[in-house]
Amino acid sequence: MSERSHSEHAIRAHDAFRGLQTHLCEELSRLDGAATFHHDLWERPGGGGGDTAVIADGDLFEKGGVNWSAVWGTFDDEALRRLGGTEREFYATGTSLVLHPRNPYVPAVHANFRYLERGNDAWFGGGSDLTPVYPEIEDAVAFHRAWKNACDRHDPAYYARFKQWCDEYFYLPHRGETRGVGGIFFDDLHGDFEPLFSFVRDCGDTFVTAYAPIADRRRHQPYGDTERYFQQLRRGRYVEFNLVYDRGTAFGLATNGRTESILMSLPPLARWEYGWQPASGSREEKALAFFQPRDWLAEHPGV
Amino acid sequence: MSERSHSEHAIRAHDAFRGLQTHLCEELSRLDGAATFHHDLWERPGGGGGDTAVIADGDLFEKGGVNWSAVWGTFDDEALRRLGGTEREFYATGTSLVLHPRNPYVPAVHANFRYLERGNDAWFGGGSDLTPVYPEIEDAVAFHRAWKNACDRHDPAYYARFKQWCDEYFYLPHRGETRGVGGIFFDDLHGDFEPLFSFVRDCGDTFVTAYAPIADRRRHQPYGDTERYFQQLRRGRYVEFNLVYDRGTAFGLATNGRTESILMSLPPLARWEYGWQPASGSREEKALAFFQPRDWLAEHPGV
Repeated sequence: MSERSHSEHAIRAHDAFRGLQTHLCEELSRLDGAATFHHDLWERPGGGGGDTAVIADGDLFEKGGVNWSAVWGTFDDEALRRLGGTEREFYATGTSLVLHPRNPYVPAVHANFRYLERGNDAWFGGGSDLTPVYPEIEDAVAFHRAWKNACDRHDPAYYARFKQWCDEYFYLPHRGETRGVGGIFFDDLHGDFEPLFSFVRDCGDTFVTAYAPIADRRRHQPYGDTERYFQQLRRGRYVEFNLVYDRGTAFGLATNGRTESILMSLPPLARWEYGWQPASGSREEKALAFFQPRDWLAEHPGV
Repeated sequence: MSERSHSEHAIRAHDAFRGLQTHLCEELSRLDGAATFHHDLWERPGGGGGDTAVIADGDLFEKGGVNWSAVWGTFDDEALRRLGGTEREFYATGTSLVLHPRNPYVPAVHANFRYLERGNDAWFGGGSDLTPVYPEIEDAVAFHRAWKNACDRHDPAYYARFKQWCDEYFYLPHRGETRGVGGIFFDDLHGDFEPLFSFVRDCGDTFVTAYAPIADRRRHQPYGDTERYFQQLRRGRYVEFNLVYDRGTAFGLATNGRTESILMSLPPLARWEYGWQPASGSREEKALAFFQPRDWLAEHPGV
């Protein structure tokens, strides 16, 4: 890493997200029970670097990763064209994770928390969303409740706002579908550093408690070729979202980011079948009905 | 289809590309030897429609399609933003095909020929490129020679120009790789209608003679799990190109095109593995060396 001095906020965010990665790798490795994370440390020529930690062929996770990075430097013309504005100096640090379980009954999940500075401007972004193959109301409600609790500890308006933002962001217009059953998403979160930093760290600490009970509840459910086939089709949708719509992926690829770290999010095995339709009355048909924005907590107060 | 009157050129292109689809489906079904094409006729609300013909689980083709369409209407603001210009009236007709063979020794292939009008402007586009998993010099040379012969019948400058255009277009900058071993690509081909129409029809007629001998040469080569695994990884790159870079795909998805026809091009089963590297000295390592722009005909005059 370079000698350039960073703001006190940048250094504190850097340390917090680095610690979050360590914590997540420990907890997720424990959750998997068999596989551990392999770490790739990398440097970015323009400034900074990261640690891409991946897990594969585990007892629970077929493929997953927890990526931490802290990068800084000067935006080139291509980055400016994509981002707008004229300020070129930036600093960005964050931790992102994507987990693709093998068992089709265990939802895939994503989380990402980041801190950015551009010139004198600074903000946080982040969120977490759940992508089941065979969605269950109980899981969607539990996931949303965990994030609502985390939000409510900081601002009573956060959950409703960030839940809606998540539904709007993780949406595939060409399929008329959400990516999964949502969660929370926020970006450009400007304001006093301390309360926002506290909120984002709390979100980081919330992830395992939001996801692990769902994974543990489903991981021993028997499945066969039908469920794996449908899982691969749904993973195809995941690929479509990440490569066509995800802003972080597009920005990373367009600005010479580290390809393997950016595309770590892609599933191990994905399928496309022309004009696939679920059989009438099948569990797959029932599953597809879940991929629309729904107010899980209000619709299911007793779950 | 609507009652709106079209130019004489539009009608002739429409008929030629419709006939090309019929011809290609017949020839490719014969080449497969087991499966036939299933046709979906569709209408476009704004004007026009198409015929998406797909083949699946054949003796040769794991998944493939030949799509014909003729669409017309008025570009909305989103289309204008993407395309530039102010002229909103358009007409577009063309036939495109993508074939994903099951045997990893048989290359995947794409071809696309189209005619467009916008206001008083009119042009042709098209091309064909070969995407082997285990490239062979003999195949790359034969494929390029077929296209060079077709080009040379019309303009001695075409092949060199369209071959380079293909290398530049089917390139994944984030991987530092071409999609395959190239072929020809051209767009915005303006000029007298008759000679261009003749050239593009000749290209359409060339496709089967360019591809079938390669498929027949490789289709009975035995393969196992290693080859299928590498094929799925390479198909992952194909997905990356089509969803991140292909202009037709991006335009189609952004302008409410028929999703299943646009994404017909995606492979049946694709794989992503973090940081995958071929074993030193392996056939996979040798294969990767092919995915750079190369002048196949000049480098291998004796093949």
